[in-house]
Amino acid sequence: MNETIETILNHRSIRSFTDEALTNEQIDTIVETALMASTSSFMHAYSIIGITDQKKKDQLAEVSGQHYVKENGHMMIFCADLSRFSRMGRDNEVEEMKTNFESTEHLLVSSIDAALAAQNAAIAAESMGLGICYIGSLRNDIARVDSLLELPQHVIPLFGMVFGHPNANTEKKPRLPKEAVYHENRYDPEQDKYIEAFDKKIAAYYAKRKQNARQDTWSDQMTRRFKKPIRLDVTDYVQRKGFNKR
Amino acid sequence: MNETIETILNHRSIRSFTDEALTNEQIDTIVETALMASTSSFMHAYSIIGITDQKKKDQLAEVSGQHYVKENGHMMIFCADLSRFSRMGRDNEVEEMKTNFESTEHLLVSSIDAALAAQNAAIAAESMGLGICYIGSLRNDIARVDSLLELPQHVIPLFGMVFGHPNANTEKKPRLPKEAVYHENRYDPEQDKYIEAFDKKIAAYYAKRKQNARQDTWSDQMTRRFKKPIRLDVTDYVQRKGFNKR
Repeated sequence: MNETIETILNHRSIRSFTDEALTNEQIDTIVETALMASTSSFMHAYSIIGITDQKKKDQLAEVSGQHYVKENGHMMIFCADLSRFSRMGRDNEVEEMKTNFESTEHLLVSSIDAALAAQNAAIAAESMGLGICYIGSLRNDIARVDSLLELPQHVIPLFGMVFGHPNANTEKKPRLPKEAVYHENRYDPEQDKYIEAFDKKIAAYYAKRKQNARQDTWSDQMTRRFKKPIRLDVTDYVQRKGFNKR
Repeated sequence: MNETIETILNHRSIRSFTDEALTNEQIDTIVETALMASTSSFMHAYSIIGITDQKKKDQLAEVSGQHYVKENGHMMIFCADLSRFSRMGRDNEVEEMKTNFESTEHLLVSSIDAALAAQNAAIAAESMGLGICYIGSLRNDIARVDSLLELPQHVIPLFGMVFGHPNANTEKKPRLPKEAVYHENRYDPEQDKYIEAFDKKIAAYYAKRKQNARQDTWSDQMTRRFKKPIRLDVTDYVQRKGFNKR
């Protein structure tokens, strides 16, 4: 096993950091690696907003409800961004581009572009001994994040990522067995049978872990989660920003 | 610079492979690394379909129009997948879950989950000396890919990835300068000024490259691309599959 694969397999989300901030050199390296991810048709349909203003971090922490959004070595927010193309087009051209801006295809393209860049950033940071955590909970109030970052039309924040020097060793969290996720040639719902053993494994993991021990299985957790509608305002917000309208 | 960062920065899409297939061990390692990516609220909202059936590869190559979709060492298709949750719920529960399945929030969650997993797979493969290329052109006829893979309701194919032993050395493609993509604390459209130098760089790159030399800038290429509506059928398809409906 090489160093890179070791880094990837060793991933765990880090939610507690020392006071040491990332150096500018570390931030530069992380951004450079993000940029080298594949990008659909060379579009680079994303932007990254680094957050250094502590007041903004505090406000973002209010949105997410997570203390590590204000207490970390650096933070970035990954955005789907089609606005560069609208700014580069002359007046009548922007009108012609609109159909693509507003299509589901381009919501997917821009979100996937941003996610590929983010995962490069995550792995690069971890390879340097830093810890990271994705912050999806910025979508708890996505419109507030939008105005905090002054995002123009055709830019939406998808998720954040916090970086820092790990303050505590956290346990590696198990994943679904590959037999439940990886199919061959056709999708086979029967492969759900591998979830049962995973439910038992997760129950044992939750019962034994040092922080937040509880009784739960993955299936119960997911069923509970999906029964409760969340973040339905994301739909309207995304459309107001000119995405996903047709 | 460590090995991992070197691997990431050295990325280039590979579109020509030797006849040598990936070993089962290599495929296993790639899937295991994919699974270790972060996943929103522990949902694992994606599935991966490995393609080993040459007839299916041929049909997928027809959809994408790319010869390397049939000529490669392995292929995977990354899908957004909320169907596991609908299969695990009892009858009335599935009805309760529907609002989340159909929300834009969960189209984003599942697409981003799939993309993070895919980028781990890409980097792991590259770290082993393999080449990869993302295949977004499967969305040229997304409904056909859907039926080829027998995808149930609440599963949609997002993109493919081909893997293999590189047959030719390709040039590394430049990326937008980080000043055009990375903002601090707020989005600043003025940072578009860095695109001008990039346009010149890209024009030089296209003029000089060995394969497919042409006269073009990034801005021209993007403007042309966005003016021509593409893949508008993705919208209806995604909704028919139970995503992105509310």
